[in-house]
Amino acid sequence: MSDRVQEFKEQRIAQNQIVLGRDNLNIKRFFGLDNAVYNDGALDSKTKEMLGLVASLVLRCDDCITYHVIRAAENKVTDEEFDEIMSIGMVVGGSITIPHVRRAATLWEEMK
Amino acid sequence: MSDRVQEFKEQRIAQNQIVLGRDNLNIKRFFGLDNAVYNDGALDSKTKEMLGLVASLVLRCDDCITYHVIRAAENKVTDEEFDEIMSIGMVVGGSITIPHVRRAATLWEEMK
Amino acid sequence: MSDRVQEFKEQRIAQNQIVLGRDNLNIKRFFGLDNAVYNDGALDSKTKEMLGLVASLVLRCDDCITYHVIRAAENKVTDEEFDEIMSIGMVVGGSITIPHVRRAATLWEEMK
Amino acid sequence: MSDRVQEFKEQRIAQNQIVLGRDNLNIKRFFGLDNAVYNDGALDSKTKEMLGLVASLVLRCDDCITYHVIRAAENKVTDEEFDEIMSIGMVVGGSITIPHVRRAATLWEEMK
Amino acid sequence: MSDRVQEFKEQRIAQNQIVLGRDNLNIKRFFGLDNAVYNDGALDSKTKEMLGLVASLVLRCDDCITYHVIRAAENKVTDEEFDEIMSIGMVVGGSITIPHVRRAATLWEEMK
Amino acid sequence: MSDRVQEFKEQRIAQNQIVLGRDNLNIKRFFGLDNAVYNDGALDSKTKEMLGLVASLVLRCDDCITYHVIRAAENKVTDEEFDEIMSIGMVVGGSITIPHVRRAATLWEEMK
Repeated sequence: MSDRVQEFKEQRIAQNQIVLGRDNLNIKRFFGLDNAVYNDGALDSKTKEMLGLVASLVLRCDDCITYHVIRAAENKVTDEEFDEIMSIGMVVGGSITIPHVRRAATLWEEMK
Repeated sequence: MSDRVQEFKEQRIAQNQIVLGRDNLNIKRFFGLDNAVYNDGALDSKTKEMLGLVASLVLRCDDCITYHVIRAAENKVTDEEFDEIMSIGMVVGGSITIPHVRRAATLWEEMK
Repeated sequence: MSDRVQEFKEQRIAQNQIVLGRDNLNIKRFFGLDNAVYNDGALDSKTKEMLGLVASLVLRCDDCITYHVIRAAENKVTDEEFDEIMSIGMVVGGSITIPHVRRAATLWEEMK
Repeated sequence: MSDRVQEFKEQRIAQNQIVLGRDNLNIKRFFGLDNAVYNDGALDSKTKEMLGLVASLVLRCDDCITYHVIRAAENKVTDEEFDEIMSIGMVVGGSITIPHVRRAATLWEEMK
Repeated sequence: MSDRVQEFKEQRIAQNQIVLGRDNLNIKRFFGLDNAVYNDGALDSKTKEMLGLVASLVLRCDDCITYHVIRAAENKVTDEEFDEIMSIGMVVGGSITIPHVRRAATLWEEMK
Repeated sequence: MSDRVQEFKEQRIAQNQIVLGRDNLNIKRFFGLDNAVYNDGALDSKTKEMLGLVASLVLRCDDCITYHVIRAAENKVTDEEFDEIMSIGMVVGGSITIPHVRRAATLWEEMK
């Protein structure tokens, strides 16, 4: 695992503990739901992670993209599949997604 | 085919003819690219249409959602798969996507 | 109640029934959460409806704005308070919010 | 002037009167500023209207696009210039702008 | 005051001086208006800061969130109120707001 | 050329090589199109760069803004023109663009 991925995961856990430690029920319910929608169902979790990745890309949320790039790799998304997800996000979301595609592709290569 | 789908398709074709009839090369190239990214490749076109649908939903583009809902049906997306796509888009994009989910689900039922 | 408000409420209920009738657990959980966050708590529901209204305005979601304008009136938001919410949304979100402010103010007057 | 343009202008004036008639100083100041930035200055008003049009397109605000398409025509933007503005907005903002490009081009042709 | 807050404030002042020193009248008017809408009026400034915070959160503007989190603390927003603002923003804006909620909650705790 | 501009350009080239080295045809086509729309045509490239800058500003894409600020300077945009572009973007896109205007103006001054 690259240092950047390790650091991202640790900060994410630490900050989630701060948010969830505040003990607001609705925030906890939202976090629970945010996990639940990516579980295997009619669509397998690999497909769902691809959906999460393209949604994050067109909304240009770098932390979300980083998370779903890592999850995509864990779910055995191939290089060609990754590029096709990027190409759809780029065409749907336009050239403003390019900086995010650059960072996503750089992370993807680093994780190999 | 429901009347609404028929009308949507006809207006889309008519307006595309206006845009493409203006003969701007870069606009034509973009339209070509917008078709190309959904073709079968490493990912099949069904998966790609699902990616296009969730991207359209989180960006709250009603015409795009209508188009991809129709394409999803043509690509044999099931009821359960449709709902899971909606649930991911709704969680990623928030309650502001709900009016679009309502319209998408209504169209989905109408098309049966 | 103005005809437009009546019609909006009826269509909203009808379409919600379509969505919820599809019986996807995560979608139902999201709908539940979407109600829960506006309940009285440390902040009263009037303040929460104002937060929902300004959030809907800057995200330019007409159906959400209509809903929260109606809820604001039900929670006794005054004319002056309504205008101040609009002014904050307009400054935060820019001139692209103006068409929505126009429609919101028109609805607000109609509901009197 | 096409009927649609006439109707758009009349509704815009009527709704602006509702908003401005509510007499909130900050809203009035924002409306004043929204006019002022398009006046001739270091950049002429034609160039400024083109900037307003592309900004409205990438933000996908149909009323704003309609307004700036009308203003572009009044400022003698040519067909070729119009298409190049559309092509930049489409590439920057992605395929989600296409429905707006369709409507803008249709209006542009109607106004001839 | 935490170091991070101090640094944020200093950089904000320094960069505002660069922008305002350029002496464009309309930019100055916008900055003036951006202050004016948060002043006490029919709604008190505490409520207005909460509106500014939720609007910044759903639009995912980190600098705006940081500014309004600081202002919320200065206006005696309580922990429970803060969490309820976050929960509304998170439900309206979706999981793409979570990275911003994480940073906002971390800053909120740091400022204690 | 300031250090920051130099560093930005180098990282942009390095990351573009990663993206384009992956050899996805549609991504390459999009990159080609993204260059083509800014070439001299009915509108000269200076005007087109101004359109790209205001579009990037209202969409709040920092990397895109940095790129178009550099390109604006290369195309002899004057100080007064730059400020008028910023003022239009700020009014269209609202106060959430202000952090980007601050960074753009700071970069503009640094490049002198």
